[in-house]
Amino acid sequence: MATEILISEVGPRDGLQSISRVMPLAAKCAWIDAEHAAGVREIEVGSFVSPQLLPQMADTAAVVEHALTLSGLTVAVLVPNLRGAQAAVRSGAHKITIPFSASETHSLKNVRRTHAQMFEETRQIVALVRELAPERRPRFEAGISTAFGCTYEGAVAADQVVRLSTQLIEIGCDTVGLADSVGYANPQQIKSLVRSVTAAIGRERFAGLHLHNTRGLGLANVVAGLELGVDSFDSSLAGLGGCPFAPGATGNIVTEDLVFMLEAMGCSTGIDLQRLLEVRELLARALPGEELHGYLPAAGVPLGFHPHS
Amino acid sequence: MATEILISEVGPRDGLQSISRVMPLAAKCAWIDAEHAAGVREIEVGSFVSPQLLPQMADTAAVVEHALTLSGLTVAVLVPNLRGAQAAVRSGAHKITIPFSASETHSLKNVRRTHAQMFEETRQIVALVRELAPERRPRFEAGISTAFGCTYEGAVAADQVVRLSTQLIEIGCDTVGLADSVGYANPQQIKSLVRSVTAAIGRERFAGLHLHNTRGLGLANVVAGLELGVDSFDSSLAGLGGCPFAPGATGNIVTEDLVFMLEAMGCSTGIDLQRLLEVRELLARALPGEELHGYLPAAGVPLGFHPHS
Repeated sequence: MATEILISEVGPRDGLQSISRVMPLAAKCAWIDAEHAAGVREIEVGSFVSPQLLPQMADTAAVVEHALTLSGLTVAVLVPNLRGAQAAVRSGAHKITIPFSASETHSLKNVRRTHAQMFEETRQIVALVRELAPERRPRFEAGISTAFGCTYEGAVAADQVVRLSTQLIEIGCDTVGLADSVGYANPQQIKSLVRSVTAAIGRERFAGLHLHNTRGLGLANVVAGLELGVDSFDSSLAGLGGCPFAPGATGNIVTEDLVFMLEAMGCSTGIDLQRLLEVRELLARALPGEELHGYLPAAGVPLGFHPHS
Repeated sequence: MATEILISEVGPRDGLQSISRVMPLAAKCAWIDAEHAAGVREIEVGSFVSPQLLPQMADTAAVVEHALTLSGLTVAVLVPNLRGAQAAVRSGAHKITIPFSASETHSLKNVRRTHAQMFEETRQIVALVRELAPERRPRFEAGISTAFGCTYEGAVAADQVVRLSTQLIEIGCDTVGLADSVGYANPQQIKSLVRSVTAAIGRERFAGLHLHNTRGLGLANVVAGLELGVDSFDSSLAGLGGCPFAPGATGNIVTEDLVFMLEAMGCSTGIDLQRLLEVRELLARALPGEELHGYLPAAGVPLGFHPHS
């Protein structure tokens, strides 16, 4: 088990894109500042998508510009296509992730692209990134969504995910991550698929896990990942955004609960849990009425709890 | 990892004792019938405590009498002392559990007894049970509460839990289980303590885990237990009773979520998830307004999900 774990906060992207409210730029920046001050080392600050489609993300370039002023922070963004990647490169983000759906049906419904078309888009982004001078070159990651199942197709074959991972590395992505955005994964499946994918592409090419807590298995799936040496997990402060088809349930796993679990297990996240909990107040003020999730914030840390960090 | 897992439903005891409402006998019996029909093989149906203290449990003898008519069901009860054990023996319950707090402070505050006094009480119950003819003899289990930490003492030394487990087996308890009623445990600690306790008393004497989800780690802790071959877990339908110090949070881990996770992982629980979910309606009718917890009930099973059982 890895003892140093990277938590990548995705709330400003995955959380905010899931709620209809648009958070003002100043509030986004204050949120990112506060998490950075609490010790968070990577934040997915937004996505370069059409502002018609997701007005919540229209100011992503400005958010990146601000986030780049924070020392030691890896500034990550999501891009659905080449056009988004061009904007991301212009913004100077350190890490660019393209979501690539393992389920072709999901890909067609979500971004209206076949796998072949997605590969073409991805190749063009690789070319774009490789043109840049090494010091300006962002890390380019493919996040394989619906890797553990799809709401349209149901089960997704592990072989399919392994094949896509291999091809994505072959065409030049730096790393591949696995995402369970619909909360279908179980711990056994996490182990099995992570084992297969890392065997195929090499552990150093495996970026980490993006897990949702739709069916309550989010942290159990983290434990399964930890067992296999996974050392990077996405999560969202207060589980912001919730889950569209499970009222009251979280979408992304909750950063506060994840940090608590990892620190209690003796892993080091570099994050100050108490300061992280205080960031919730900022969210509550910026998004009044929005449901904030998390068990630890409600129950508090155990008496005598000593974080590892 | 064990592939056949016993889920012991504790809702009629741990769930009901945590809410002020008294569920009528007929509703309790209907609940137990419905879970039995869904395939649940062990139910803790009540506790033999003072009806002044817990009026919710006053009809436990009658509940046991009914539950004993259900074929193949292990009828379990909780007893705080010899007097309760005598009533339990008279009732004909198959399994008697005494909660024994690893934290002496908790023991003093909770049942006003030192460890020495608890051992004496336990010895007397052993004697009572051993007087009985083998075919009438219930299994006598010690459930070590606050095994993973205590709200009064904070951390509880693993050595203390191992020593108590060993002594409890030596004085004649059939099995020892570990309980985290305050939701302090983390997966690393589960592994470490289960390993130490089973090494000390033997795997066949280890009964299983009683976990709460107070800090959201309930199912993650189950996964840690599974890794070590633990094959029996307590849980409560709809997480009934909730958590007194974390509004909206569950107390016991939720039976529906647990069954889903285990079946998804390829374990067999013998429980029909669909029929189990239907039992919630009975609870909703019997306890109007009471909060019913659970992720799976809100989100539904994944498309194409095939349970193992």
